Amino acid sequence: MKHKLSEFDLINKFSPKFSSALPDGVLGIGDDCAVLPYSGETMLLITTDTLIDEVHFLSQKMPYHDIAYKSLVVNLSDIAAMGGKPSYVLLSIAVPKKMDRNRLDSFFSGLEYGCKKHNVCLIGGDTTKTEDKLTVTITVLGFSDKSQIKYRSTAKRDDYICVTGVIGDSVGGLHCYLDNLGQHTGDTLSQSYQSLKQAHLCPRPHLEEGRWLAGKRGVNAMIDISDGIESDIKRITEASLCGAEIELDCLPLSKEFSAVAEKHNWDKYELAATGGEDYCLLVTVAQDRYKLIRTEFEGKFGFPLTAIGRITSPDTGIIFKNNGTPVNLSQQGYDHFR
Amino acid sequence: MKHKLSEFDLINKFSPKFSSALPDGVLGIGDDCAVLPYSGETMLLITTDTLIDEVHFLSQKMPYHDIAYKSLVVNLSDIAAMGGKPSYVLLSIAVPKKMDRNRLDSFFSGLEYGCKKHNVCLIGGDTTKTEDKLTVTITVLGFSDKSQIKYRSTAKRDDYICVTGVIGDSVGGLHCYLDNLGQHTGDTLSQSYQSLKQAHLCPRPHLEEGRWLAGKRGVNAMIDISDGIESDIKRITEASLCGAEIELDCLPLSKEFSAVAEKHNWDKYELAATGGEDYCLLVTVAQDRYKLIRTEFEGKFGFPLTAIGRITSPDTGIIFKNNGTPVNLSQQGYDHFR
Repeated sequence: MKHKLSEFDLINKFSPKFSSALPDGVLGIGDDCAVLPYSGETMLLITTDTLIDEVHFLSQKMPYHDIAYKSLVVNLSDIAAMGGKPSYVLLSIAVPKKMDRNRLDSFFSGLEYGCKKHNVCLIGGDTTKTEDKLTVTITVLGFSDKSQIKYRSTAKRDDYICVTGVIGDSVGGLHCYLDNLGQHTGDTLSQSYQSLKQAHLCPRPHLEEGRWLAGKRGVNAMIDISDGIESDIKRITEASLCGAEIELDCLPLSKEFSAVAEKHNWDKYELAATGGEDYCLLVTVAQDRYKLIRTEFEGKFGFPLTAIGRITSPDTGIIFKNNGTPVNLSQQGYDHFR
Repeated sequence: MKHKLSEFDLINKFSPKFSSALPDGVLGIGDDCAVLPYSGETMLLITTDTLIDEVHFLSQKMPYHDIAYKSLVVNLSDIAAMGGKPSYVLLSIAVPKKMDRNRLDSFFSGLEYGCKKHNVCLIGGDTTKTEDKLTVTITVLGFSDKSQIKYRSTAKRDDYICVTGVIGDSVGGLHCYLDNLGQHTGDTLSQSYQSLKQAHLCPRPHLEEGRWLAGKRGVNAMIDISDGIESDIKRITEASLCGAEIELDCLPLSKEFSAVAEKHNWDKYELAATGGEDYCLLVTVAQDRYKLIRTEFEGKFGFPLTAIGRITSPDTGIIFKNNGTPVNLSQQGYDHFR
């Protein structure tokens, strides 16, 4: 008998088997990173993600340089989500037998570029050939002061739910790739298509924002937006035992995304909320600290920290509203198991 | 233009790009584990390996429980090779869409069994679905005192080259699986076939042996035998800038392997030297310390530490002999890139 098994189910089903025997001070499965004691007040953060061709990237349409860069960044983003500073990287790569040397060169050049840009060192890994698709597993180690780590499980009732960047550009870019949009340079939206594709291909890990927010009193919970606001807020509410209300019309959308969405009749708020791969941070902030933190954030980074909803009591679940009216999102977030 | 690229080539080609910027006290690519400073004299060891169905295991013929167990053990063996004690595990798994829940249960039960048996904790990871084959990436973190870590690069001229266990059972077991040997219980060699299959499927990481040897003066270099003596001694000689002479007829072979090899006309010494996946340790020991260490080793573990050759000057390269006569090995070790 075959079962469909979602990524959430899989984690929920098997993680209790492995959570009981953890030593004191160790955080296991269930947040963006595992956390281990390191030295004094410093903690070691560790995270790993596998990316597979045609599941997580499209090697037919995307440069290998950028595939490597993105594979690194999605892991760096997990470190950002806990307020850490990434330091070391391991790469395990299964290379298709027919992948030629130029593509491998391009891949490693993208990895080298990413390591230099984000000041991390590749210290090890594994290489193997495969008959199947390119499969890239990256593990990142980072560090943080114990007092400054932010978790999914510490959101508090009435916190504002905020995001550190625009939402939707990445999924917009993915649709541009999938639907071959923006291939004619004369198109009036040509630059918008390119901008969205770039957002999808080369996301920026919000490392500085994460570290800064982690040091702020009143920032209660943090996660990076990898699978989409709809999925990622669910991770916060499940871990923090709370509900949430999200105002879709408050999502900060770029003018490029809005323009492309309008042209192609995309439901822009729904797509933005469910698309994923934004790799900015979703944070919950105590109401009485929000104004100050928002002002300081904008002063420091030059772009806004945007409130898009608030944490509610657990019995309300997660409610999405558009202009005050509750809406059902037809897409179920981004689950690699679909 | 397509190139064949061996695993050695790939590592040699790209690792210099990443080795120059490492902080003091950090060992990067090039040994069984990366090594990072941890706390005081304690160092953190970290290793990662990807195993793919039909490259590293055969899910059609092997139980998922054992596939998971072996995926863990091959990583634990890398920690053993540096004299460390493994503590934490991360699992990144790409699950084929058609893999049913019973198989997943069996896989996780094997992983749980392995974690308990070797006293390590699963602390994180990643799950994804794939159209392709089951792909398992495991990362293990372990610890060791700085003074007790053994490397590939520290073999000394005239050291005896020794192994901590029998060689060849695992590749013998693989051939039993590939050629469907030992499927009839009445066969006189039935128990031998089973024993070899078991050695292939459930190797034992030589963790205690590794820690014990790492504490001994005169044990100069260490590596685990994953790709076969022929490949792994090459890693020692390249890293230590030396040559080596291996006496094939000194390889400790089990009576089960010898019996099966004889029956099927396998060249037993050549197969044992090139087969791989033995997961015992290959160590180089100063000649003047060998007798004492061998005696203590056998007293402690109840089986021998066997000398199979010696380290020579770099200009002699690697020479294999059988009864004193140099021989060419026709198989080129186990390279997943072939």
